[in-house]
Amino acid sequence: MRNRLWLLGFLLPLLVAAAPRRKVIIDQDAFGPGGPNLQPILMVLQSPDVEVLGITVESGDGWQKENVAHTLRMLQLIGRPEIPVVPGATFPLVNSAEATKRWEARHGKLFYKGAWTEVWSKEVLVRRPAPHGPEVVPPLVEGEPTLKPAHETAAAFLVRQVRAFPGEVSILAMGPMTNLALALRLDDRFAAGAKELVFMGGSFNPHPSGDGFGLEYAHTPRLEFNFRWDPEAASLVLRAPWRRILQVPVDPSTRTRFTPEMMKQVSAAETPIARYVARWVESFPLWDEIAAAVWLEPSLVTRREKLAVRVDTDGDGAGYGNTLSWPAGQGPGLGERDVEVVFAVDVPRLERLVVERLTSPGPTGTK
Amino acid sequence: MRNRLWLLGFLLPLLVAAAPRRKVIIDQDAFGPGGPNLQPILMVLQSPDVEVLGITVESGDGWQKENVAHTLRMLQLIGRPEIPVVPGATFPLVNSAEATKRWEARHGKLFYKGAWTEVWSKEVLVRRPAPHGPEVVPPLVEGEPTLKPAHETAAAFLVRQVRAFPGEVSILAMGPMTNLALALRLDDRFAAGAKELVFMGGSFNPHPSGDGFGLEYAHTPRLEFNFRWDPEAASLVLRAPWRRILQVPVDPSTRTRFTPEMMKQVSAAETPIARYVARWVESFPLWDEIAAAVWLEPSLVTRREKLAVRVDTDGDGAGYGNTLSWPAGQGPGLGERDVEVVFAVDVPRLERLVVERLTSPGPTGTK
Repeated sequence: MRNRLWLLGFLLPLLVAAAPRRKVIIDQDAFGPGGPNLQPILMVLQSPDVEVLGITVESGDGWQKENVAHTLRMLQLIGRPEIPVVPGATFPLVNSAEATKRWEARHGKLFYKGAWTEVWSKEVLVRRPAPHGPEVVPPLVEGEPTLKPAHETAAAFLVRQVRAFPGEVSILAMGPMTNLALALRLDDRFAAGAKELVFMGGSFNPHPSGDGFGLEYAHTPRLEFNFRWDPEAASLVLRAPWRRILQVPVDPSTRTRFTPEMMKQVSAAETPIARYVARWVESFPLWDEIAAAVWLEPSLVTRREKLAVRVDTDGDGAGYGNTLSWPAGQGPGLGERDVEVVFAVDVPRLERLVVERLTSPGPTGTK
Repeated sequence: MRNRLWLLGFLLPLLVAAAPRRKVIIDQDAFGPGGPNLQPILMVLQSPDVEVLGITVESGDGWQKENVAHTLRMLQLIGRPEIPVVPGATFPLVNSAEATKRWEARHGKLFYKGAWTEVWSKEVLVRRPAPHGPEVVPPLVEGEPTLKPAHETAAAFLVRQVRAFPGEVSILAMGPMTNLALALRLDDRFAAGAKELVFMGGSFNPHPSGDGFGLEYAHTPRLEFNFRWDPEAASLVLRAPWRRILQVPVDPSTRTRFTPEMMKQVSAAETPIARYVARWVESFPLWDEIAAAVWLEPSLVTRREKLAVRVDTDGDGAGYGNTLSWPAGQGPGLGERDVEVVFAVDVPRLERLVVERLTSPGPTGTK
């Protein structure tokens, strides 16, 4: 018996190493350096059972070109130059800065509008450049990347990879879904060819926490930025024939934060990744980290519900970009489909997973 | 000293009797018998410091004609035949049953649509007649009224009373606001001539309680029936130059119910009013009772906030009838005005007030 246990202890690591890793493409509006958009990418890169086929980038919190530069610089600093960074959509399908201004004149100022922000608060400007056009990449505070982006466009890359590994590729989408919408229209078999879509977006009945982030949902409980930047893309993605959709809306994030304790733990680690994270971390709600975490560890989800979900695409209406929902199977039948929605997660376990992935030496043991 | 206290004890009741009573017109979709629409009317009628100038009635939960009949029968049973019952609007300003059907085909079934309900649940049919047209008044389960309604229309009555007592009349509106909208357009000075408007309507971020009533807000947190029945009327009322508006939305009601304990206390009382209430009471949230209660006892409010409020009047949009809001003074400036909104009340004190008013002998000591 003792001999056999010894044998198991010897074989197990080999078995794990030989097991096929979970293939994923990360789609993100990777506005950096570090922070809430890039930390979840690092969590996935740091998971030994995962193979990141590439990172597709679009506009959202920041413009695509700048987001690509931040992503490349991060991969360089953490020693992962082999991961493809694929530039995607700069503009949403239909929505625009001009339409947004017109909408605001009619329906009131949006709480947040990402790359369309006209004036950043002083606090934000400490680490981020002043608002600028989509073609401008201002000097990066974390240093300029020497790595280069892929030549392919994000949508073509998504289509090619899903065709190459039918039924095997998870899409982890944490920004507006413009790239996914384009891929769906480039290839009718794209959605059904992927293993699953796990995305951060939408808002149902978030608890409006007392802080500044909570205020966003006090007046517009159904409005979330990823959907609002490109409502038509989100609508199209939600009506596609995916084998499985897991939606991570704002709801589970409103009681989370990257806490001072988590920051301390990350700062104490000595890896290049932890140093990069600690340099740029901010105390934001764990919006995208939750999406990455529940894809990595589905057992973190403590409350999920199946709902029919769609997006309001009436560009002139007060609810443009709002999440629409109905009890499962009870929508009007205009293409909306039932989606699994994450409403709550185990927050202490989530925090531990975030810290563990951001401080571990990583799958390649990069130092 | 003892002598003086004795004198005070003697004079106080006389002083109270001599003090001018607070004048109020109650506007209600008084779908009965008893229950959540009529109980709050009784609470006000039972308040010794209040003079009810009249009850103006419109459609909403039920049709106006039937609502008027229930109100008259109630006044008869409790011995208050002197209170004018004034028939008001049967139909909303713009909205209609046909438009609602078309809307449902596009945006999904409404959770509740009052007099437009096509099929009542069996539970409801125990005490309410099958759905019927606006001109039909089915036999009343509580017996037919012999009292007659006023000959004036509700809007004209409202205008006349407010002119008769400038700055003195409170409007307590607990149904859709069609009558008020008509009064506002009959007389441009109506809003500014009233003392205040206190109304039940709208929805901001209600806690979706686990019960059937909570489900309503799980998918449409901004949708409330009074606004949804006549969104244009609500919009018009909210843009009028009232001296003061106090809004009681759904929010404070989701954690309240007419509890079994309250029912027991009411059943134990021996007055005609308590007998009438106990006969027809149901365990609904205290929607309208809260509006009546905070008008009677403003100190019941534990959380109020000033917000800019309007109603979505885009009849084809997914958000038709939704409550729109912005931080005070930060709306788009299209007529929306700052409104005091009640978000929470002292529930134990509320319950005590409801029971006390429904079981007290009443201002006239009617037996």
